[in-house]
Amino acid sequence: MPSHTIAVIAGDGIGKEVVPEGIRVLEAAGRKFGIDFRWDELPWSCDYYLEHGRMMPEDGLATIRHHDGIFLGAVGYPTVPDHVSLWGLLIAIRRGFQQYANIRPVRLMPGITSPLRDRLPGDIDFIVVRENSEGEYSAIGGISFEDTDDEVVMQTSVFSRRGVDRIMRYAFELARSRPARQVTSATKSNGMSISMPYWDKRFQLMAERYPDVTPSQFHIDILSAHFVRNPDRFDVVVASNLFGDILSDLGPACTGTIAIAPSANLNPERDFPSMFEPVHGSAPDIHGRNIANPIGQIWSGAMMLDHLGHSQASDAIVRAIETVLTEGPRTPDIGGTATTQELGRAIAEAV
Amino acid sequence: MPSHTIAVIAGDGIGKEVVPEGIRVLEAAGRKFGIDFRWDELPWSCDYYLEHGRMMPEDGLATIRHHDGIFLGAVGYPTVPDHVSLWGLLIAIRRGFQQYANIRPVRLMPGITSPLRDRLPGDIDFIVVRENSEGEYSAIGGISFEDTDDEVVMQTSVFSRRGVDRIMRYAFELARSRPARQVTSATKSNGMSISMPYWDKRFQLMAERYPDVTPSQFHIDILSAHFVRNPDRFDVVVASNLFGDILSDLGPACTGTIAIAPSANLNPERDFPSMFEPVHGSAPDIHGRNIANPIGQIWSGAMMLDHLGHSQASDAIVRAIETVLTEGPRTPDIGGTATTQELGRAIAEAV
Ligand SMILES: CC(C)[C@H](C(=O)O)[C@@H](O)C(=O)O
Ligand SMILES: CC(C)[C@H](C(=O)O)[C@@H](O)C(=O)O
Repeated sequence: MPSHTIAVIAGDGIGKEVVPEGIRVLEAAGRKFGIDFRWDELPWSCDYYLEHGRMMPEDGLATIRHHDGIFLGAVGYPTVPDHVSLWGLLIAIRRGFQQYANIRPVRLMPGITSPLRDRLPGDIDFIVVRENSEGEYSAIGGISFEDTDDEVVMQTSVFSRRGVDRIMRYAFELARSRPARQVTSATKSNGMSISMPYWDKRFQLMAERYPDVTPSQFHIDILSAHFVRNPDRFDVVVASNLFGDILSDLGPACTGTIAIAPSANLNPERDFPSMFEPVHGSAPDIHGRNIANPIGQIWSGAMMLDHLGHSQASDAIVRAIETVLTEGPRTPDIGGTATTQELGRAIAEAV
Repeated sequence: MPSHTIAVIAGDGIGKEVVPEGIRVLEAAGRKFGIDFRWDELPWSCDYYLEHGRMMPEDGLATIRHHDGIFLGAVGYPTVPDHVSLWGLLIAIRRGFQQYANIRPVRLMPGITSPLRDRLPGDIDFIVVRENSEGEYSAIGGISFEDTDDEVVMQTSVFSRRGVDRIMRYAFELARSRPARQVTSATKSNGMSISMPYWDKRFQLMAERYPDVTPSQFHIDILSAHFVRNPDRFDVVVASNLFGDILSDLGPACTGTIAIAPSANLNPERDFPSMFEPVHGSAPDIHGRNIANPIGQIWSGAMMLDHLGHSQASDAIVRAIETVLTEGPRTPDIGGTATTQELGRAIAEAV
């Protein structure tokens, strides 16, 4: 029986509520498909920071370096400044483990009413491939003339050929595996006139190597508008770190699935473990009320199974999610009164 | 009779088709309200570039420095790289004339079907106040290790205290003049951990000076999602150059008004002329077919009148737009068969 050691970082807020449901469903799938999991639960979080002055131990990455995957809930809480908590844990893992491909499916699901008019399940089904290791999220910059009227703050985006090419290659390879075979690139070369023309140039060069894939590109402003007006037009969307962040919240907002959207932070070369987490955050406003929707976490678990080579078990979880979305129960965010656990149990049973 | 000298830059593509309709309607309002216009038409455009190697003459800004306003159509065409045409004309004017406040109303209009379910005219009515002179659109950066695998491209965002404070002050003053008195700031301080925490800090300091205005802030990813899910919640939204660009396309996409949304590039101190232009671009795909919707241009003309002190005439144009949106005629983008000129004439008559 295949066995996988998974680092579990429930993190903050509702992360602590939804991760146990993710584990419950993965265990159910494991029983059915003969997969054994060892859960290595780590308390890294804002609470940990308040006690130890760091989000994780200094040798944190080393201790999970050989795990088969990382199952993460949410990071960030009002007790710690966001840029401290995120850079000390979430972003540190993404970068430290070269998880450069952040994969975020956008799909209209049965039983979910899209805020867009006249869209039906099946109409919208695309994937945002977000660059996850460089770009606009940099640590380069600072302040001049501090505390005077002349204060100036600078921050530098960094795009490397290696970083840009590998995410584009990933996107084109992914498109090749899908029926529509299209890749759309998000750019803003008319405004950010140094970095983005370079992004465009590398995109064009990569597109030439994939003549069987149809390339297109839009400026991020228009592309955001198209997500609302023509979301059925997209297949694979490749974007920089910042643009991918925006598009992968906007996409699920358009499909009404923001509370249930999953994501994978992949190290495609498998030199390091990959990480799986819902798109939603720690949601301090609903934390503690036991009403958080665990589907984003559970669906992320399905993506982890797929990455670990268990595509059948992964599909079974996605089908179980669809069943429960159609038949209930439902948490309050999707119009019901069920608790986080009730939803988790229902999906585990449906598996 | 008040008289205004206006620089007219029709620019490229459908800019050349919609600007004459804007002028037609402004002339009609001028006749009715006793305002005289002198139109100084300038051929600055991509065509001009192909002939002269520049988007405008070297002393271009100096020649319109004392004009009362600039009425612009659209800049950019496939014949010239975007970052050349935009930085050589549109962005050069915005920066050269310190038009640091880019004002973009987002409003659900009568006769327009929003792509969002269940939203009615009046439900959505907010204003994006976009910083228009610095931030992410910088000219600082370059490439290292060019043409090797180690190629790295960097681009630096620049936020000055002066630049950040003046746009925030503008937003809070504007909110004070509106019934809801709310300002929402777009940030991304969890990811862009140098520039955006500074933006947040200046926002908080400015908010303390306006205790009668309710401040709030969201990360740009969630804020984009809220534009789709809760657009009725916003009043004044203040954003950096890049974030404002995205939000001011996304907002009109949600109201279904992307082809008709107007904008003002204001120099609030009136040291320099301000500029008025539709949010849409030069639309090479429909250029020459005489089907471009001129309402964005006409509405921008109404904003210009307001800026010049003719608020009654400005209101009359907005009402005329609403009348024609309700009763027709309509261009193809809003479900009719009328030409650009037919719409322009109908609005001029309604004034
Ligand atoms: C054309 C482009 C440079 C411009 C911008 O991003 O400022 C446009 O999108 C706009 O919104 O006015
Ligand atoms: C919390 C934040 C730093 C993070 C990001 O922007 O990467 C989040 O929004 C996400 O999308 O995973």
